[in-house]
Amino acid sequence: MAKGTLYVVSAPSGAGKTSLVKAMLKQDQSIVVSVSHTTREMRPGEVDGVDYNFVSMDQFNEMIGQADFLEFAEVFTNKYGTSQRWVEDQLEQGKDVILEIDWQGAQQVRRLMPDCLSVFILPPSREALEERLTNRGQDSEDVIALRMSEAVSEMSHYGEYDFLVINDDFDQALLELHGVFLAQRMKIEQQRERCHDLLASLLS
Amino acid sequence: MAKGTLYVVSAPSGAGKTSLVKAMLKQDQSIVVSVSHTTREMRPGEVDGVDYNFVSMDQFNEMIGQADFLEFAEVFTNKYGTSQRWVEDQLEQGKDVILEIDWQGAQQVRRLMPDCLSVFILPPSREALEERLTNRGQDSEDVIALRMSEAVSEMSHYGEYDFLVINDDFDQALLELHGVFLAQRMKIEQQRERCHDLLASLLS
Repeated sequence: MAKGTLYVVSAPSGAGKTSLVKAMLKQDQSIVVSVSHTTREMRPGEVDGVDYNFVSMDQFNEMIGQADFLEFAEVFTNKYGTSQRWVEDQLEQGKDVILEIDWQGAQQVRRLMPDCLSVFILPPSREALEERLTNRGQDSEDVIALRMSEAVSEMSHYGEYDFLVINDDFDQALLELHGVFLAQRMKIEQQRERCHDLLASLLS
Repeated sequence: MAKGTLYVVSAPSGAGKTSLVKAMLKQDQSIVVSVSHTTREMRPGEVDGVDYNFVSMDQFNEMIGQADFLEFAEVFTNKYGTSQRWVEDQLEQGKDVILEIDWQGAQQVRRLMPDCLSVFILPPSREALEERLTNRGQDSEDVIALRMSEAVSEMSHYGEYDFLVINDDFDQALLELHGVFLAQRMKIEQQRERCHDLLASLLS
């Protein structure tokens, strides 16, 4: 069986990354999103193993010690990370795996798995981004300005990615994002393996 | 403006290549199919400049002399070829250009335009191929056997192509073929040029 491909998908918050990925998963059973490990407490409604793999700080640190993480990050007092074993396992099963992480995580992943492909998603305009960041709640101007500067900081790394998708029209962006995954699967090296029996029968 | 990409699309007859390409053109205004030059006589219903560019043998030979052709072939007493100038012109305008040619034409094009991408389309099974070749008319078994051997000969070159699409479910194959085109457009180098103004505005 042809192995799957590892994808890193990054975006500033407000670009619509999560909705796009969710919609793509619905269309394509061969894609899975990695479930991160985290040390933060489970919130009401969250499910262990679905939203996150919830672990203690000791367990997390032990995994770091065993080089279990493809990437990890500390956000305030909590840690978040992606298990390399789980990812490799999915790829072996022929699944494409998506990591929804930021540019720093992306850099860690590229170092450990250089065959990964990375996609950056951008909003269609500065106005649209500001609007999306503002609409999220009733936050003060300071909070919105902080979010905006974080978004600009994240976006400044777009050039490190293999692909760039602009989320203007949602359906078009979905088609384009999915296109990246489909094209990769159509590559001759992957197809040669995947269609081995068909090729043998056609050319006999 | 970002330049378009040149695609070579090949398939054994009966694989559904022309229907797939036609359906893709309908969905995507940025793709055009090259109109070949030919010396054969115009048939009833054909339109000069649409089905083919009809030229005399002298004109065709003059174009060969001027190295106007990206590829050309002789089929019985007629010649068929693709004008390089027309192709370059379309690419400059940002269009993706498709050449529907066989493996021999593909080899000529790769030599002259190594940045081109090539896609091979296959039927889903030997039975399906036989059926499609048979259903075309009321031909003798000899004619069908000849077509089958021509198809196998064409298919034996699949490994020279960048992408391989299996036309089993038409809509899925269409999505996959189109995905190859979309993914290429999403590549960072192309997008950097195409989205120059957006990027400047987002990062300001």
